[in-house]
Amino acid sequence: MSPFPTRTHTCGELRLCNVGERVVLCGWVQKLRTISADLYFLPLRDSYGTTQLVYRSSSDPEKSHLLKDELLKLSPESVICIEGIVVKRPVETINNHSMTGEIEIELDKLYCLNPANKLPFAPHEKNIPNEETRMRYRCIDLRRDSLQSNLRKRSLASWTIKDFLYFLNLGFVEVETPALFKSTPEGAREFIVPTRTKSLFYTLSQSPQQYKQLLMVGGIDKYFQFARCFRDEDLRSDRQPEFTQIDLEMSFASINNIMSLTEGLITKVWKQVIGVDLNDNLSFPRISYEDAMNKYGSDKPDTRYDLEIKDISKFVPGMSESSEHIIECLIIKNGRILTGSEIKFLKTLNHGFEPDFIKITPDNINSWLLESIITRYTSHISQRQEAATNELGVEVGDLMIINKRRRITEGNWTLLGRLRSHVAGILESKGALKIPSSKYNFLWIESFPLFTRDRENNKLVSTHHPFTAPVSGDLKLLLTDPEKVRGQHYDLVVNGVEIGGGSVRIHSPLLQKIILDDILKMSRAKKSEFDHLINALGYGCPPHGGIALGLDRIMSVICNTSSIREVMAFPKVASGADLSVSSPSELSKEKIREYKVDVLEEKDDKDIIDDITIGRSWPTMSLRDVTYTKVEMC
Amino acid sequence: MSPFPTRTHTCGELRLCNVGERVVLCGWVQKLRTISADLYFLPLRDSYGTTQLVYRSSSDPEKSHLLKDELLKLSPESVICIEGIVVKRPVETINNHSMTGEIEIELDKLYCLNPANKLPFAPHEKNIPNEETRMRYRCIDLRRDSLQSNLRKRSLASWTIKDFLYFLNLGFVEVETPALFKSTPEGAREFIVPTRTKSLFYTLSQSPQQYKQLLMVGGIDKYFQFARCFRDEDLRSDRQPEFTQIDLEMSFASINNIMSLTEGLITKVWKQVIGVDLNDNLSFPRISYEDAMNKYGSDKPDTRYDLEIKDISKFVPGMSESSEHIIECLIIKNGRILTGSEIKFLKTLNHGFEPDFIKITPDNINSWLLESIITRYTSHISQRQEAATNELGVEVGDLMIINKRRRITEGNWTLLGRLRSHVAGILESKGALKIPSSKYNFLWIESFPLFTRDRENNKLVSTHHPFTAPVSGDLKLLLTDPEKVRGQHYDLVVNGVEIGGGSVRIHSPLLQKIILDDILKMSRAKKSEFDHLINALGYGCPPHGGIALGLDRIMSVICNTSSIREVMAFPKVASGADLSVSSPSELSKEKIREYKVDVLEEKDDKDIIDDITIGRSWPTMSLRDVTYTKVEMC
Repeated sequence: MSPFPTRTHTCGELRLCNVGERVVLCGWVQKLRTISADLYFLPLRDSYGTTQLVYRSSSDPEKSHLLKDELLKLSPESVICIEGIVVKRPVETINNHSMTGEIEIELDKLYCLNPANKLPFAPHEKNIPNEETRMRYRCIDLRRDSLQSNLRKRSLASWTIKDFLYFLNLGFVEVETPALFKSTPEGAREFIVPTRTKSLFYTLSQSPQQYKQLLMVGGIDKYFQFARCFRDEDLRSDRQPEFTQIDLEMSFASINNIMSLTEGLITKVWKQVIGVDLNDNLSFPRISYEDAMNKYGSDKPDTRYDLEIKDISKFVPGMSESSEHIIECLIIKNGRILTGSEIKFLKTLNHGFEPDFIKITPDNINSWLLESIITRYTSHISQRQEAATNELGVEVGDLMIINKRRRITEGNWTLLGRLRSHVAGILESKGALKIPSSKYNFLWIESFPLFTRDRENNKLVSTHHPFTAPVSGDLKLLLTDPEKVRGQHYDLVVNGVEIGGGSVRIHSPLLQKIILDDILKMSRAKKSEFDHLINALGYGCPPHGGIALGLDRIMSVICNTSSIREVMAFPKVASGADLSVSSPSELSKEKIREYKVDVLEEKDDKDIIDDITIGRSWPTMSLRDVTYTKVEMC
Repeated sequence: MSPFPTRTHTCGELRLCNVGERVVLCGWVQKLRTISADLYFLPLRDSYGTTQLVYRSSSDPEKSHLLKDELLKLSPESVICIEGIVVKRPVETINNHSMTGEIEIELDKLYCLNPANKLPFAPHEKNIPNEETRMRYRCIDLRRDSLQSNLRKRSLASWTIKDFLYFLNLGFVEVETPALFKSTPEGAREFIVPTRTKSLFYTLSQSPQQYKQLLMVGGIDKYFQFARCFRDEDLRSDRQPEFTQIDLEMSFASINNIMSLTEGLITKVWKQVIGVDLNDNLSFPRISYEDAMNKYGSDKPDTRYDLEIKDISKFVPGMSESSEHIIECLIIKNGRILTGSEIKFLKTLNHGFEPDFIKITPDNINSWLLESIITRYTSHISQRQEAATNELGVEVGDLMIINKRRRITEGNWTLLGRLRSHVAGILESKGALKIPSSKYNFLWIESFPLFTRDRENNKLVSTHHPFTAPVSGDLKLLLTDPEKVRGQHYDLVVNGVEIGGGSVRIHSPLLQKIILDDILKMSRAKKSEFDHLINALGYGCPPHGGIALGLDRIMSVICNTSSIREVMAFPKVASGADLSVSSPSELSKEKIREYKVDVLEEKDDKDIIDDITIGRSWPTMSLRDVTYTKVEMC
């Protein structure tokens, strides 16, 4: 027997049509309002809404007295169950802002199910505490409307995606692959899991990449999984050590097949979760990595605002299309509104490069190229100055940022791209640029170089991962000019956030071997870690490709939060700590030794421990601002 | 541009109505049948079916020749793409066993997408290799019809469950909780994950128990998750180091609420996945732990067959209801068909106990009690012998197994329970007992003791976990007679397999503290590991309860497999190894040291490593036969 009656309704459910019904509600006590000694109002909240309870002293004075006693004892956020009658509110007390604002419940019985101690903060007050406090008391923080709403949207999005892949596109099979995987060469830093056998370790899977390729070999024609992935990277940016990927793979699929499936999926999610139509019939625009880097200085550009970067090499004598470098500029219309200290801040982003910041005045509108230390090479420049001013539409009041860089771009940002993003933020904060948060500019970035030169060791590394197939037309360059080979990789970007990436994979064991051997020049030992995959490709592996979408980032865009922590129930802070349960923690020596490992004795790391234990300081950068390496999504 | 055309149909799709269409198919080459130099048949298989391709030399001899050349070069299981025309088969070659048996494809073009090397085994031959080979080449094994079907059923089951929880019962929110958790006292052995900070470790979550309780505190009224859980237990039985739980929790819910929701969910899955009606309107039967142990000698009895255990103490002088022990017997009707060596085998299961095995003959039908060394205490027994024979319906030819045990049962099996299960297996194999595989006897086991005495240390431990609420009527016994307190825990059992378990949890911080302090007598250090939870209960935690269902076990019952490995894509073998990718593996010293640990130097464990590396020997016991401890599902 339950010690309290079963609730008949939620606190968000009752309406005028329920008037006269005897109901049972359960929920959290809000602030009691005392009108008189005989009249009290008590809002009761649950996950679905708030309903007003009303206490009036009744004809049975003893019962009435007991009930009132109970009522007055209740601390805020205590959990109660009540019985009562739904009554219509007097007209003057109707609350049109609340769904249940036309009724109230005449209290008859009250069961205090769990009295609450004093809470470290009130989840329904406007001033929310700092993030550390919220993380430490996450169970209280979760009661806030915004987190409730974000988690429910996430749940709806998950549902919608499964509905789309499983139900609407018959044939996708949801397959779970192991999290306990093994170490693979290349890729991000992985968590290691010692076994009870000396020297043998699992690692936590960074992505189901290899397993899903084995599934393709195994004839699981279309696979998907909501995969928990683990990466032990520094959480300097908005990144979590564990995150969720919507991982899918299809046999016999081309880039177009995968892109159009993904577009359908995203369109469905946006419609279902926030009611936004993304123009069903139009494909998302595509841009090559090279164009994106030249135009926006980023491989995940936010195209909701203009601020394009222009190549101005042709105005500078001595520069030609075969030069190793180019000169480019970012024109900030009306850039004079940037203050000196803002420009100073922008200059700190240079990382050693030296771009020029030139404010256009009536005096220099026809001599800014000469004024720039970057471009004032020769006297011939003055001939081209006017052409530049005209072609670029330079006006008095503009701010020009001029930079010289290597023609071949690498990585995720150029310096001007980084400045473009920061300038946009500054302009937006001043009201000089409108970046509409309800606009969603999706963009496919494609034609990434398959390999990138690691300048430190002067060797080639995979730009994404070694399983990405080359563009077939570029195959002939593979052995002669591998840096020019483009990969069949694509990233999906929205509003400056990379929300997914994928590729068509290599299905030929021979080609895979050539890439590991002749291009990446892997040692025999490293290469042997891929033996199972190369063998599998040889057992009749179909051509295949897929994509992995980052659910956390998608939700962050949908919920318009500045951090993915706001769309996760129990995120970890930058130190890697989960403050809500105090993980990670120390273990007994015996427990550790059972795993045939021992704590390494080293000096001078006490400070780090303190930092982690206290869990202080994590970055508050927004998703858009973040740089990361490319080995990220596959 | 894709180097091959996009498929227009799958190999399971074409019918008579498609005759005349030009189609593109992709798939795996089966065995080529040569009829003449001008006529070849080639079945093409994909994940959806098989379609017969036919080659006939055509009017264009050159093209014809090239195509034939290509055809003859194809090794089995090579991946090809073909273009051709759907034609009707001549009547005499129609194959009624195949969905596509009325048509064939007149070959026109053939693209070999990936020639296959010789496979270690043929996935579509009747004789399948041993499990080690299948695990090592799992990507080939996955092509077998049974694995394809099992994984697709699993996917359908997952879908159905989400559909039921999310869509049909509006209000369930799918929330993902961290896998990187922290060590908790009590519970099974957990995997540890070193961090890059000395002495700090995560552990992999054994279940989302604590997080889901925090979600209830946080006002996520109804939660569910398909949770990956990790336990580093010996895989001596049919258990995996990582497995999937359908984890759910509800606020303000009683045992009945949770049971009826679960029954609805299970009924829906059985109907949807294998078309079996479980009698919607009937609840599953419930039985107390004590009754189950007395009647079936197991807390997860298979009730599809009778073979009940009888208490025969009353026939034995000197035994009373207050005796510490009881005498019980298992009557195997017609048990004489058990051979001497089978009985010898059964006796090996005794683990030191000494039950009597007595074959009933005309000579001893009225003296078997006297014949038993367990029951022949006194001369008075003869008076009760006839009553026993009559009441139990003992007949000549029966086999009686008589045993004495402590009245209070503990753990999962009594000796006679274990024998009952094995005897059933032997009888079934001899055709003397019919255990219908298509019958599903669901059963709730409830009223488990909340605590069990750990005889080694003579202290009480939680039978399940320390968060289980006591039956409210038993609260008064908590401090005086804790061993008599029953928990609000319930297990769901079908056909002898425990497929889930749950409980109503403690929501009072005071009660939780009393249990940790006064009953479990936890040290201050251990208890402090639960501080966050006790604090959370004090912030207005609603009464709540839930259940976790083992998806792997459910699928194993549904797919009628002897092992959960047959319903997982990439299971690990008993040694913990994933032979398909050779995990776990050795790591470089540097990599290990980055995590501030080092391999513990110890001698004499080389043999273990060899065992694991080779990955040999894992048990082939069926799910029904397996003993396991109770800390398992929560």
